[in-house]
Amino acid sequence: MKTFFSPASIAVIGASPREGSLGAQMIANLLYGYTGKIYPVNPNHSEIAGLSAFPSVEDIPGPVDLALMIVPAPSVPDQIEACGRKGIRRIIIESAGFAETGPAGRALQERCLSAARRAGIRLWGPNCMGLVDIPRKFFFTFMHPKLYVDGLVPGRISMIVQSGMLSAGFLADLMSERAVGVGKACSIGNKMDIDECDVLEYLMEDDETDAIALYLESIGRGRRFLELACRSKKPIVLLKGGKSSAGAKAALSHTSSLAGNARLQDALLALAGVTPARDFQQMMEVARALAMIGKTPRACRTAVLTFSGGAGILSCDLLEAQGLRVAALSPATRRELAGVFPDWMPASNPVDLFPAFARRGPIAAYDGAFRAVVKDPRVDVLFLHFFVGLYPNYERLKVFKEMADREGKLLVIWAIGRRDALRIFKREAQEAAIPVHGELYRAVECLAFASRYIPRRKTARLLDGGGAYRLPPRAAALLGENRGRIWDEFDGKRLLKALGVPVVVEKIVATAAAAVAAARQIGYPVVLKGLAPDNVHKTEAGLVVLNISGPAALEKAFADLARRMKGRGRMLLQRQLPVEYELIVGLARDAQFGPCVMLGLGGIFAELQKDVVFAPAPLSASIARELPDRLAGKKLLQGYRGQKPLDRKVMAEILTAVGRLAAACPDIEQLDVNPLVVCKGRPVAVDATVVRRMKNDA
Amino acid sequence: MKTFFSPASIAVIGASPREGSLGAQMIANLLYGYTGKIYPVNPNHSEIAGLSAFPSVEDIPGPVDLALMIVPAPSVPDQIEACGRKGIRRIIIESAGFAETGPAGRALQERCLSAARRAGIRLWGPNCMGLVDIPRKFFFTFMHPKLYVDGLVPGRISMIVQSGMLSAGFLADLMSERAVGVGKACSIGNKMDIDECDVLEYLMEDDETDAIALYLESIGRGRRFLELACRSKKPIVLLKGGKSSAGAKAALSHTSSLAGNARLQDALLALAGVTPARDFQQMMEVARALAMIGKTPRACRTAVLTFSGGAGILSCDLLEAQGLRVAALSPATRRELAGVFPDWMPASNPVDLFPAFARRGPIAAYDGAFRAVVKDPRVDVLFLHFFVGLYPNYERLKVFKEMADREGKLLVIWAIGRRDALRIFKREAQEAAIPVHGELYRAVECLAFASRYIPRRKTARLLDGGGAYRLPPRAAALLGENRGRIWDEFDGKRLLKALGVPVVVEKIVATAAAAVAAARQIGYPVVLKGLAPDNVHKTEAGLVVLNISGPAALEKAFADLARRMKGRGRMLLQRQLPVEYELIVGLARDAQFGPCVMLGLGGIFAELQKDVVFAPAPLSASIARELPDRLAGKKLLQGYRGQKPLDRKVMAEILTAVGRLAAACPDIEQLDVNPLVVCKGRPVAVDATVVRRMKNDA
Repeated sequence: MKTFFSPASIAVIGASPREGSLGAQMIANLLYGYTGKIYPVNPNHSEIAGLSAFPSVEDIPGPVDLALMIVPAPSVPDQIEACGRKGIRRIIIESAGFAETGPAGRALQERCLSAARRAGIRLWGPNCMGLVDIPRKFFFTFMHPKLYVDGLVPGRISMIVQSGMLSAGFLADLMSERAVGVGKACSIGNKMDIDECDVLEYLMEDDETDAIALYLESIGRGRRFLELACRSKKPIVLLKGGKSSAGAKAALSHTSSLAGNARLQDALLALAGVTPARDFQQMMEVARALAMIGKTPRACRTAVLTFSGGAGILSCDLLEAQGLRVAALSPATRRELAGVFPDWMPASNPVDLFPAFARRGPIAAYDGAFRAVVKDPRVDVLFLHFFVGLYPNYERLKVFKEMADREGKLLVIWAIGRRDALRIFKREAQEAAIPVHGELYRAVECLAFASRYIPRRKTARLLDGGGAYRLPPRAAALLGENRGRIWDEFDGKRLLKALGVPVVVEKIVATAAAAVAAARQIGYPVVLKGLAPDNVHKTEAGLVVLNISGPAALEKAFADLARRMKGRGRMLLQRQLPVEYELIVGLARDAQFGPCVMLGLGGIFAELQKDVVFAPAPLSASIARELPDRLAGKKLLQGYRGQKPLDRKVMAEILTAVGRLAAACPDIEQLDVNPLVVCKGRPVAVDATVVRRMKNDA
Repeated sequence: MKTFFSPASIAVIGASPREGSLGAQMIANLLYGYTGKIYPVNPNHSEIAGLSAFPSVEDIPGPVDLALMIVPAPSVPDQIEACGRKGIRRIIIESAGFAETGPAGRALQERCLSAARRAGIRLWGPNCMGLVDIPRKFFFTFMHPKLYVDGLVPGRISMIVQSGMLSAGFLADLMSERAVGVGKACSIGNKMDIDECDVLEYLMEDDETDAIALYLESIGRGRRFLELACRSKKPIVLLKGGKSSAGAKAALSHTSSLAGNARLQDALLALAGVTPARDFQQMMEVARALAMIGKTPRACRTAVLTFSGGAGILSCDLLEAQGLRVAALSPATRRELAGVFPDWMPASNPVDLFPAFARRGPIAAYDGAFRAVVKDPRVDVLFLHFFVGLYPNYERLKVFKEMADREGKLLVIWAIGRRDALRIFKREAQEAAIPVHGELYRAVECLAFASRYIPRRKTARLLDGGGAYRLPPRAAALLGENRGRIWDEFDGKRLLKALGVPVVVEKIVATAAAAVAAARQIGYPVVLKGLAPDNVHKTEAGLVVLNISGPAALEKAFADLARRMKGRGRMLLQRQLPVEYELIVGLARDAQFGPCVMLGLGGIFAELQKDVVFAPAPLSASIARELPDRLAGKKLLQGYRGQKPLDRKVMAEILTAVGRLAAACPDIEQLDVNPLVVCKGRPVAVDATVVRRMKNDA
């Protein structure tokens, strides 16, 4: 990958002298800051922008590290072959007209890829804006030079963006206004060869990158992406496009992506420590916050120093709403603050400095308050508010940062004010490595993300659930028998039981008399179920009778169900458990992320809100243990209203067993344990659905 | 109120010639655009800023409509009296040092108020930044003139702000950068006389105001505020500060506010059609969106026209996440779009225009696509994305708006781009009355707020539940008896029953034998409860025995409870109902908003999430009917998994009954029906707590 980012020489295939053409813009961009050799390639010109041009790459005299292509799509395969002959091993194809355009384009893209494979070439693109390295002023892209003439803010946040026009436009916007400094911006387009995982892996090791922000419409190699994210020592922030049905449809036509199961992917990415974003600018601010303040998680007891009482109050509201703590200042700090304030002003957090402005001037007020608060052992974060453009209070940012660093405190800034002054201020803050935000909510939200950021050591063991193991012999035997595509619940639970999952006491009963006899052993109340072949919706079909309290009722229920079943299927008698709450455990298969185990709240909760979590199968021991804690309703599992807490050990065993089955038996298409009833803290499978892919299904 | 906003003459008490002083700034601000007579008042100068100055207001020759005061707090009462003698009837006190500083300041504020009352003067402030009318260039404020030199964007969104420095700073920020045009900005400070209700009422009738945005730390007259909001034909957006405990504490010291019960207030305000905001800038964008696009609610089937496929995809994701619909374009539109696009490009929503740029140029691409989509009967909203500063595509905004208006379609813009061009673009959009946003999420969020905006006719009947009525005689009789402060649940339910609330079948039983006899009538299973005096936590005290299935178990339970009760209190036998789910109905009293009825999900749900709604008591018929629909978990009430839906008529009767009791008996301090069990759709009170304020409590 390094050659893509630091080539010693570049050929531009499709270079052009015509003003406004993409080929001309690409040359102009290279001339802007790239210091290596530039070889324009164009059969009709011998000189372009003062550089010697060549009819073909093969005519270039010296070695070429990287080729940039901006020629019409149909000519790309030939150009790749020419590059191969010339010995070029890295190409960025920025032309469009490939897989995103339909079947013909997809075929063309395939031809490019085989040509490259034959010649040992790595391809970047097509249908992309290439890559930009802002600190080095490398612009390997056809984007319009106007886009960066307003000035660039070099920084240490690098971007991977699947959408071409977006990356260029957004970069320009970011540059011109918002002052989040960017390191490398990588537009990967259709990613026919180089994909987000390749670039992510490179940026994870890049000394000039502190955090990685990604806009992706698809994740091609889901498991690989999770592995990288788990390993990353740098924060990764992901904005995933195409989550909605309409968005996913558009994603297909846009960069020929497949969006996948959004809920499952979100859950897995969260497990791997990836921070989710919801919009472009927010993604950058979150990434910067994580890079600047997210290295060591802290309690985030926050002191607010403000020029506006109202903004101070709202900051406290927002901090609490995000689960962060408003610092209670120590008596010593309050005493020291009292010297800054007029007598009538109580020195408390939020620290409203405006009343002190008149007395000591704004600079002295900020200074005095900052010095007092930064030393307070009860404060972890100083949230500074500035109104910029009236008082020259931003000269002290570097000093503030040094003091905060000495005390091990975090700084976050909210700044509003006059336009030009604000722009300068934001850059000063950026240079002092202090995150600065234009909205209070955003500032607090970023701080909250930083406080929740899971450092590498906690996620590293996510995917170590693998290794060889054997299904228990009884389970293997059951799987060896031919039970058809849809198993009935009794067979499903036999499989679960063989895997070590606790299952409700139950018995197949052939006659009413047998049912009564069995019920005597099981104990009333009992449940009688009619297991009709291929019917997984028993309740809706009227094939479940609950609350049977004695032999007479059981006999009647048996007769009723037998009538409904019309001689098909069989009858199952179960102990009726007193239910505290219900869970659902299941197996899900994702094209990108592979087999996964799902855990969710069941019953009434499943109706009202989808509270589900996922983990990649097979589960690592640590994930199996902690997965229930990732449910939004985890409070329920901790022992609601004095009830027994969920037996976490048994729960982990169930999740592990389902995960192993998912990983070991790819032909188990669906497995649902629903409900997994919890009674006195103990989870018990009460119903199960197993759907198997038959050999003739494929 | 009109005199405050349009005075023919103004006296400035505390005017000063000293540069940088607040008195000098106030004069400079008036000279900036105010066209009436200005009388500086200062005993030491005969001329200030070229105007004749007077030692006292009484020395001013002509009549004075309005006095602005920026003198030290202790001299304010005397100045008010002088104004009274002069015949001035409107004063804006911008000085600080009053109630916000503690008891002495509070006393001073009281003195001001009595002086004003004696003289028939209305007071605005103190501790505020006065008022600004941007279209007229009226600056009745001491804010620094530098704050608006960058230029102002006049608009039709007016603001009411409780925080002084904030209003000035925020205004400057808004003006210099974000281009939300502002009409009147009213900083009301400590609001010792004129409060948010007064200003709101004025702005509701102001021809130059289309929407009202408020930042408040307290709402003094809650009921009045609700009444106004219900009546308002204009959107009201409220950012409420001081919701958190820390924020509320700060609010107390800041503008001497009392924050109140945040959840209750939020629910009532939502009922009254007030749109909640969470941050300053967001509040303004939401208000503008409601003013520009919220007049008629629509289905909001949205078409996205974008320069970036990625932004189009994300827009669809955000639209769906907000519950809005991505428009499915009609075949005719798709055919017409096909003419704009290269052949390979599918013409669908989101409409990615970038591929058409090369073919027809960006202007023609936007134009062609807009013309096609704006006519589509399946489209209600056109969400336009612009990259500004590269192509001059914003000349057409006014034309687009006219076409959209003709077709009855809404326009919303997301714009990013180069700094200066973007600023001009935003103002052009503003002038064309198209809301323009800098972030996709914000744009979609504002559209969602607009789609949910409740127009006046739906909220107008919120507060008409009043009128005289009499409690049923049986209820009145029970209330007439002296049952002490805390009623036991049996008495509580007798009261409920007398009010018409369905109550579980139950009986007080004095002996085990009586219990068995009663149970025979009631039917097993039964519940036995020990009602210990003043104990409202029976379960925790072990005084409830559930699931008693026969006489033997009942006798044992009776003996156990009798032992625990040690001869105090009495024993209650109840039918045990099969529970589908539980609700809670209660009575809440708020200092600002008066008596309210609360409805919430109970049981397991109450543990996991506080899903509660409130309505002002007594309830109007329409609110009693619709209140259950305001629960987040309303799906549960609609008949979960084929169960019977909640009997809405009975539910409305229960809510109405509790509301009447709350309004009619101010000495009922607490009333909780918890649980109100729902069984086959029918709500039944199973437990109740009544706490009465005794005469000696006050």
